[in-house]
Amino acid sequence: MEITANNPNRKSWLKVEENSDFPIQNIPFGVFLTKDDIITIGTRIGDFAIDLGALHQLGYFDGIPLTDDIFLQDTLNDFIADGRKTWRLVRNRIAEIFDVTNGSLRDNVEHKDKIIFRMDEVEMQLPVSVGDYTDFYASKEHATNVGSLFRDPKNALLPNWLQIPIGYHGRSSSIVPSGTPIRRPIGQQRPNEGETRPNFGPSKLLDFELEMAFITTVANDLGDRIPIEDADEYIFGLVLFNDWSARDIQAWEYVPLGPFLGKNFASTISPWIVTLDALEPFRVDNPKQDFEPLPYLKREGKDSFDINLQMAIQPEGKEETVVCNSNFKYMYWTMAQQLAHHTVNGCPVNAGDMMGSGTISGPTQDSFGSMLELTWRGQKPLKMNDGSERKFINDNDTVIMRGYSQNDSVRIGFGECVGKVLPAKE
Amino acid sequence: MEITANNPNRKSWLKVEENSDFPIQNIPFGVFLTKDDIITIGTRIGDFAIDLGALHQLGYFDGIPLTDDIFLQDTLNDFIADGRKTWRLVRNRIAEIFDVTNGSLRDNVEHKDKIIFRMDEVEMQLPVSVGDYTDFYASKEHATNVGSLFRDPKNALLPNWLQIPIGYHGRSSSIVPSGTPIRRPIGQQRPNEGETRPNFGPSKLLDFELEMAFITTVANDLGDRIPIEDADEYIFGLVLFNDWSARDIQAWEYVPLGPFLGKNFASTISPWIVTLDALEPFRVDNPKQDFEPLPYLKREGKDSFDINLQMAIQPEGKEETVVCNSNFKYMYWTMAQQLAHHTVNGCPVNAGDMMGSGTISGPTQDSFGSMLELTWRGQKPLKMNDGSERKFINDNDTVIMRGYSQNDSVRIGFGECVGKVLPAKE
Repeated sequence: MEITANNPNRKSWLKVEENSDFPIQNIPFGVFLTKDDIITIGTRIGDFAIDLGALHQLGYFDGIPLTDDIFLQDTLNDFIADGRKTWRLVRNRIAEIFDVTNGSLRDNVEHKDKIIFRMDEVEMQLPVSVGDYTDFYASKEHATNVGSLFRDPKNALLPNWLQIPIGYHGRSSSIVPSGTPIRRPIGQQRPNEGETRPNFGPSKLLDFELEMAFITTVANDLGDRIPIEDADEYIFGLVLFNDWSARDIQAWEYVPLGPFLGKNFASTISPWIVTLDALEPFRVDNPKQDFEPLPYLKREGKDSFDINLQMAIQPEGKEETVVCNSNFKYMYWTMAQQLAHHTVNGCPVNAGDMMGSGTISGPTQDSFGSMLELTWRGQKPLKMNDGSERKFINDNDTVIMRGYSQNDSVRIGFGECVGKVLPAKE
Repeated sequence: MEITANNPNRKSWLKVEENSDFPIQNIPFGVFLTKDDIITIGTRIGDFAIDLGALHQLGYFDGIPLTDDIFLQDTLNDFIADGRKTWRLVRNRIAEIFDVTNGSLRDNVEHKDKIIFRMDEVEMQLPVSVGDYTDFYASKEHATNVGSLFRDPKNALLPNWLQIPIGYHGRSSSIVPSGTPIRRPIGQQRPNEGETRPNFGPSKLLDFELEMAFITTVANDLGDRIPIEDADEYIFGLVLFNDWSARDIQAWEYVPLGPFLGKNFASTISPWIVTLDALEPFRVDNPKQDFEPLPYLKREGKDSFDINLQMAIQPEGKEETVVCNSNFKYMYWTMAQQLAHHTVNGCPVNAGDMMGSGTISGPTQDSFGSMLELTWRGQKPLKMNDGSERKFINDNDTVIMRGYSQNDSVRIGFGECVGKVLPAKE
């Protein structure tokens, strides 16, 4: 099916500011609370939130096989489970409805009143109920940096890393939408030199991780696998993902079973899921991989995506400082490889599962995706625009992630993924 | 509130075989499909399945604050979210209804026909929709054995192990009820000596892990913690848990982020959740811990439970061989400590979350909870009753876990947790 929603020449009758992340070519999906306290599934064009529940009730999706209440829900899980054909039909239809040449809704004041809200009138919610959340570790630069800092600079990259898209399971219950305040976690930390008992208290090394995450649909039954050729069919879309990390808690706990409390206190996502379809124009060549991938991980074509990513820190009441500029294309392992790997053993993937990329660090110092790497574990503090310095994240700092793809004709963005750090309790 | 359901002297008018795991003092909760293809929440007495949906519709729970459809669901999550007071009211009421002296249902043939099924007429389902699943690593003997086998016998127990209830996140989507066939997983395995490329194919070292898992109710919001004093209030009950493991896949992938595909192809649970209340008579002294626990992990009292656990292997068409006898009381870290630790950083715990104990190995060779340990990685194969030998689990072997507590007056059991291993696909 042609993705007519991606037509770069289309204009909307809704006003879209220049450089908006949400032109009519984007059409992301999210869940919001209206000023009347109604939860609905929606999309966004420019600075307008569009109530898809109302749009459907008023007949604008006629002819598309959708259940009556598919958009009148507090998560996108059921819609995502409907599969790619339905997503495409809906996105294409939304593009038509809001096309500058289409008067059906444009000229219906009563309908517009029920369907269209200003973004500042709605409150964005978590877009999916996350069943299982997996975090990969797919940036070679990040794995090398962390291996150097946590283990041994001479053998920073472990032997399995170049063969396997390494991943681990994370905690779904602490995934929160942009804007949710993050409490500095408390926990055990490594004993002081010569001591046997651990330290205990608020984390001193609170960090962000600049990641993206993709959201899947129902893909396979227990015991079956997803062939890499089919992987894209099961990827609904992507969000920005800040995988908050407490480095001191993590360093003490993570051997031998991996990170746990150092990670599961919070992960923040951007609220609009940008579809894989909308990102089609931004496919770029796969990274060159050191080893020929095993057959189940091998696919020709462009499976990487050129998405500019940025992280900024804003001290309370001060201007922000951009501390990192990275790009999703720096990933060594592609999403298709990750999904094929995740299921090669028969592990079932469901609608609403989330798969994080792992921290995305680029080749240069200013593209490292965590404070751990940017300040080389605090050895090289960052200068902030307000004159202060940061080794890690301070209380009351707001951490802001942004991401967008751009070419000559269109910009597809994710908006912001924001979290303010509150002081530890007690 | 008194747990009158635990009265050891009570008898039921339903026939209960001697040595049944399900006397009227048990009253576990589960979900089953009736012969009429209706899914309902139920309990079990002897070899009878009791439809709690029908019981509620017919008015037997009058006076207990329950929504009309609380038992007419395909998971126990909402009932679990109702909290401990409600669980107790319902269990106490069920005990009264089936008390040998109570004629209200006993003498109502029409009602009995709607409410009571023979166990062989129903099909047990997964009792909860598992939100997040965490697996701990809480047996000192197991951690020491695995540390010796995977790493270094001289430093088998890592320095953090005695200070932290080590845990990691697992995969919820591959948790299946007893009886579900398990497909031997395929995946990458360590390269041969001197080679750089990994091996790939069906796991050769397929193993069980003898564990128990507890199921929680809604406990805390993001950023809050569960004090250890309150932990029991949030534990609904326990199940037997076989955490299938592919040792060769695990060994190659697990550094540095922990086990992933070596575990997430399947975990089997017993279908009846035995409540923590029913296990009250079987509390025993906490294990002696090498270090005084940090304050957030410290609680006086009896937080360990005496539950006999057994694992057997049955080759196809042959008699079974019991390969392990262990006990839940061998755990070094208690459930209360695990829950307090899991939330000390503010990680939210929800109704239907599952927390595995980790493999429960006792002090003697025959109490080790995995084939890895029992055969010392295949060096000491086990003799089976049919004359064959096992280093790990063969195709078409059925693995059967059993568990029960017993004192002079009552036996509270879990039934069986069964899985048959099918050959790998392709």
